Amino acid sequence: MGRWKPDAPGRLAAAALELYGERGYEQTTVEEIARRAGLTERTFFRHFTDKREVLFWGSSLLAEQLLRALDEAPAALPPIAAVGAALQAVATDFFGDRRDYAQRRQRIIAANPDLRERERIKLASLAAAVADALRRRGVPDVAADLAGETGIAVFRVAFERWVDETNRRSFSELLAASFDELQSLVGTTAPR
Amino acid sequence: MGRWKPDAPGRLAAAALELYGERGYEQTTVEEIARRAGLTERTFFRHFTDKREVLFWGSSLLAEQLLRALDEAPAALPPIAAVGAALQAVATDFFGDRRDYAQRRQRIIAANPDLRERERIKLASLAAAVADALRRRGVPDVAADLAGETGIAVFRVAFERWVDETNRRSFSELLAASFDELQSLVGTTAPR
Repeated sequence: MGRWKPDAPGRLAAAALELYGERGYEQTTVEEIARRAGLTERTFFRHFTDKREVLFWGSSLLAEQLLRALDEAPAALPPIAAVGAALQAVATDFFGDRRDYAQRRQRIIAANPDLRERERIKLASLAAAVADALRRRGVPDVAADLAGETGIAVFRVAFERWVDETNRRSFSELLAASFDELQSLVGTTAPR
Repeated sequence: MGRWKPDAPGRLAAAALELYGERGYEQTTVEEIARRAGLTERTFFRHFTDKREVLFWGSSLLAEQLLRALDEAPAALPPIAAVGAALQAVATDFFGDRRDYAQRRQRIIAANPDLRERERIKLASLAAAVADALRRRGVPDVAADLAGETGIAVFRVAFERWVDETNRRSFSELLAASFDELQSLVGTTAPR
């Protein structure tokens, strides 16, 4: 694997990732990305505002899939369980065959403070979108906010364990393990 | 209240907040802020890189106090309880007499997407700093990350309730209530 489907934004994203890995994010130009993808700069700018955003193309796809899975989760599930079910769905359907891609992307983001900041903002927006989806399910305001934030925190922690070079466990297993850790952390003592 | 202590950065922060409230963030210049504070632009730039950062001056103070409180929390406290104790300490010592300031600042930040993004990044850094402080207490990596993120999520939710115009409860009460909500959210069902 290593390439997305052969549509233009997917080819551009794959080409960008290759070039960022080979010569560094700072050193790569949009022209080079377009050339590597066999497309024009004009096509690049039809899909992305700059060379940074191309790294976050997958984030919108992930958000879409996660929110759809959440809207489809059984109405009877309590909020955190619904978020857990939706995360499990994307762990398989979205990330299943993309570990190599995710690892290469992670290395590039980890090496650049501006990209790390951008990644954090995307995750914060995702948490806010999850909270909104929970409100649509009738979850009260504060519970929706807390479940959105903690769900995305669990996701981030599980994701980082999953892309670690030494890891051999599936994303799905690591998500479940991280939810268990959250539960034993929070379940024990209510601070007052 | 409404003013920080009469040191230069505090006076600049108070002047900036006044002007942002009166004529809007976008419309205010550094020159005007310095003049209102009775200081020079040069002094402004000795303390802040730009007119945005002046709004986040308190964030560094908050981070310092929160981390100190966390380092001083009894070693026997479980991670989330230690974070809860540190947040309770700043709810009183840091925010106690600053609701008016906090409300005015919140209104300015809420009105501007760039400032909202900046606030999110500051909170994400704070969560990371809390996680590091927990690691110093011997908390394992994943638990430290989760406790940092969930603790700051609880803080944010409680803070938003506290600055709401209609609210009459103390920050401390709202923090405890938000921790309780987190516990009932997470404690019930472990998603798998």
